Amino acid sequence: MISTPVEIVIRSCGIMVDMATAKENPAGRRTARRRGRRPAGEDTRAALLAAAREVFAESGYHHATVRAIATRAGVDAAMVNHWFGGKDGLFAQAVLHVPFDVREIVEDVTADGPERLGENIVRRFVTTWDGAGGSVFVALVRSLTTHGEALDVLREVLLGKLLPAITSAAGSDQPDLRAALCATQILGLGMARYVAEVEPVASADVEALVTTVAPTLQRYLTGDLGQAGS
Amino acid sequence: MISTPVEIVIRSCGIMVDMATAKENPAGRRTARRRGRRPAGEDTRAALLAAAREVFAESGYHHATVRAIATRAGVDAAMVNHWFGGKDGLFAQAVLHVPFDVREIVEDVTADGPERLGENIVRRFVTTWDGAGGSVFVALVRSLTTHGEALDVLREVLLGKLLPAITSAAGSDQPDLRAALCATQILGLGMARYVAEVEPVASADVEALVTTVAPTLQRYLTGDLGQAGS
Repeated sequence: MISTPVEIVIRSCGIMVDMATAKENPAGRRTARRRGRRPAGEDTRAALLAAAREVFAESGYHHATVRAIATRAGVDAAMVNHWFGGKDGLFAQAVLHVPFDVREIVEDVTADGPERLGENIVRRFVTTWDGAGGSVFVALVRSLTTHGEALDVLREVLLGKLLPAITSAAGSDQPDLRAALCATQILGLGMARYVAEVEPVASADVEALVTTVAPTLQRYLTGDLGQAGS
Repeated sequence: MISTPVEIVIRSCGIMVDMATAKENPAGRRTARRRGRRPAGEDTRAALLAAAREVFAESGYHHATVRAIATRAGVDAAMVNHWFGGKDGLFAQAVLHVPFDVREIVEDVTADGPERLGENIVRRFVTTWDGAGGSVFVALVRSLTTHGEALDVLREVLLGKLLPAITSAAGSDQPDLRAALCATQILGLGMARYVAEVEPVASADVEALVTTVAPTLQRYLTGDLGQAGS
């Protein structure tokens, strides 16, 4: 029964898919389509996640439509934007198990102004992925190296939404370069802490990482990059 | 015939194994053991790489011995240390296709003194992996997320040999922390350039990356980490 590329991503995420399915939809994957009423709040979100896993697995990312997913979940299609910011955000959370909502994270890291962006990004990144369990980050990296669709979505979420919102909050010149430089440090922090498990970074407490790594992100966002022009 | 964990790593490296085998040992994998004479120089190195792939595939990393590999290659076991710095370095180059020799890279990046380490590391890292082709880095990251043995060896090469030699050259306090912080930035630079292909980092020229990223590594190696004590 497993045949589409997206199902391969789902399998590559292994245990996390099972955990997420069990938590959000304990009665099994067919529950969502049997609902007779429109669920509200977190129920809507959970129904969309369950329906999205089915539709992405059946149709693949590019052929799956927001309308089809919403219909199967028994909710209005506008709820996809409301809860996930669009199809890519829904894919990221339903299939890739990215443990955050982009708008929520942008609000969180920009709340204290441009000069504390570096600190807030490191703190939020580490607490989010620590909370999800390092294996979720490992599964994500694995899906990036084995499946182009996963890479497309992550790039869209990271570079199309998350980092532009942050460089905009920073008032940065050269926003694309600064965003990409931030990506190098934050991806690498995740690689060293969760994949390669390089000590003492792997077991350092959050504030120690904030102290040592945040200045790098702050320079990338608002500091002197040492270049003349772009 | 494919059954050992190491063979799984070899398969995960896909095309690179074929390319390497074709280049180093065009007559096929059994050539090395048929040699009647002890080859010299690059021939010794190529014979050891070919023999290592066979022995690691048959026995796994932990059970393969330097003596067995050298015997199959028809060379003295001391040649493994001479060319690869030990079993882990031989595994890294033969199976994981890490495109560098640790001692050569240490000599190269430390040649201009402690204050130019950041610059030399970025320049050497980018030129080495650009030269190997981005797919080699992607294959390496994939092997790290799918195979514990690959991770062990990389950690041993990176943290047991390469980074300690660099922090030693830097005269750094807190060498383990500084080495791990360097690992975060350099792994992340590779992730952004070769795996996620984040622009403009993915297609930036080497010197632009040196200008923007080297100050991070230099601070991690010789700068103020903002901590009181360790």
